[in-house]
Amino acid sequence: MNFEMIRQAARRLHGHAQRTPILWSPFLDEIAGRRVYVKAEALQHTGSFKFRGAWSAISALSADQLKTGVIAYSSGNHAQGVARAARAHGSSAVIVMPSDAPLSKINNTKGLGAEVVLYDRAHDDRDAMGDAIAAERGLTLIKPFDDPQVIAGQGTIGLELRDQLPDHTGQVLVCCGGGGLSSGIALALEETPMQVRPVEPEGFDDVTRSLSAGRILRNPATTGSICDAILSPQPGDVTFPIMHRLCGPGVVVSDEQCLHAMALAFAHLKLVLEPGGAIALAAALFHGDQVEGDEVIAMASGGNVDAGTFALALDRFPVS
Amino acid sequence: MNFEMIRQAARRLHGHAQRTPILWSPFLDEIAGRRVYVKAEALQHTGSFKFRGAWSAISALSADQLKTGVIAYSSGNHAQGVARAARAHGSSAVIVMPSDAPLSKINNTKGLGAEVVLYDRAHDDRDAMGDAIAAERGLTLIKPFDDPQVIAGQGTIGLELRDQLPDHTGQVLVCCGGGGLSSGIALALEETPMQVRPVEPEGFDDVTRSLSAGRILRNPATTGSICDAILSPQPGDVTFPIMHRLCGPGVVVSDEQCLHAMALAFAHLKLVLEPGGAIALAAALFHGDQVEGDEVIAMASGGNVDAGTFALALDRFPVS
Repeated sequence: MNFEMIRQAARRLHGHAQRTPILWSPFLDEIAGRRVYVKAEALQHTGSFKFRGAWSAISALSADQLKTGVIAYSSGNHAQGVARAARAHGSSAVIVMPSDAPLSKINNTKGLGAEVVLYDRAHDDRDAMGDAIAAERGLTLIKPFDDPQVIAGQGTIGLELRDQLPDHTGQVLVCCGGGGLSSGIALALEETPMQVRPVEPEGFDDVTRSLSAGRILRNPATTGSICDAILSPQPGDVTFPIMHRLCGPGVVVSDEQCLHAMALAFAHLKLVLEPGGAIALAAALFHGDQVEGDEVIAMASGGNVDAGTFALALDRFPVS
Repeated sequence: MNFEMIRQAARRLHGHAQRTPILWSPFLDEIAGRRVYVKAEALQHTGSFKFRGAWSAISALSADQLKTGVIAYSSGNHAQGVARAARAHGSSAVIVMPSDAPLSKINNTKGLGAEVVLYDRAHDDRDAMGDAIAAERGLTLIKPFDDPQVIAGQGTIGLELRDQLPDHTGQVLVCCGGGGLSSGIALALEETPMQVRPVEPEGFDDVTRSLSAGRILRNPATTGSICDAILSPQPGDVTFPIMHRLCGPGVVVSDEQCLHAMALAFAHLKLVLEPGGAIALAAALFHGDQVEGDEVIAMASGGNVDAGTFALALDRFPVS
């Protein structure tokens, strides 16, 4: 896992992934007390950065592997990324999804041509189900974060940041589940003054606590936050050492603050964010005391949100 | 009014306006029956393309004019563009707005440092009010569309389209009020195979009827559509001859179809659009029989919408 792998992933993604823009608003700057550059990765194909990692991993497979097909476990964003990348490579995808995933994520995954297998979080053994399907059909597993090619794909965002904000010397707030996005961007920025700060939901701060303890710690629960996209049980064996070496301390944000950030991104950036995709912006806006520098970059990592949750955010935090 | 003015405007805007991305989704392509490229101008500073025209006009003023200040009439998008561009040039702006403009547009205009003067559409003579203020203070009027420098600013979008989609030979659907955006883009694309098609709300199809008649015709009403940003009474004396020479026939879209396009842009592009800013996308999705070619470009010209109207669109047209 090194910088050269990220550059190679960028070459494979070129012309297939969106180069997402940097947005900002004087209204958000005023709330944060500093300039907040928002990397609008919700505008990526399939609505989240996960498309990059999926494309990176699938484009590195052999012709035989592509012919047989791939399998992935995902609550929705990785699912859509894998489905679209597999289809574009002429391959097929089986996606194992929890039955309580947002309906839009399930339907979009099907709409992108994948075969969706649902499991019950409370009663089914997801891994056993997936392993049985994979073994029976000879499918290649595309992991959601703890894989070098996936991390390299997410790291291409860091290359774009270097290019889009060449003078930035501050911190980069990153929405963090298992750490694929945080570790990938951190590796891409290793030779720059920019530092990644992982951001997590209250109660699901495994990376924050693990970074602090210097060893991998688990979350006590697996459900219970609206940030469904980033509720991984613990940092990965590949991602954690990278984050431990390169990232600053984690930042922890409440669900309410994520909803508030969604309403502000709606009003001032015209960007649709899902709760987990708004969490880094929420950190920039509401936890600025933990951030250093005159300027900060906040990843806006995904926008796959159901209409009901989005309307709730607008209703709870009226902006006009 | 010529191509060189657009190139000069682009030089003045460089580094100040966003170069907005081209988005697309296989889900939208399926509805439209062709590839739909969406030029996401709602991501422009102040949430609409109007920033370009305002910056172009204000950056062309003399030091004396900037010192004295500018004035504009606007229901909201031009208002915000003028306010922000004036402040960035160290100038001041008075904006005369209808009292029934969306509250977010009024508040954002004030938040960008402008002095807002409200008038009652039913009882006040807007022009008389504005003329009196302008004369008393010596302010320079920045027109919303019927001005060569404003048209040149909007035309910079056409230059970006040439660069972003160099192989496109099809039609470009453009949200149309007074015709500043349509005429500017049409001029920028004059030497290409691309053709602009103005898109208007039902009951406010003055440009469509004027193009068909070959002379300027007025709308019977001035209010009565949710597309508040594009309810101009008639095409401009500067914009109409350009549109008549270069544009294809107009397309007319219902308010319901605009709301539906807003919900689809939310779900599949993660983009917030206002009704008038979604009307060209609505034409691409629901009036494809009037469009030619395998691919079409749809301008998404603005996203300054109140939360209530947005939530209404999501409620009326559930997507997941």
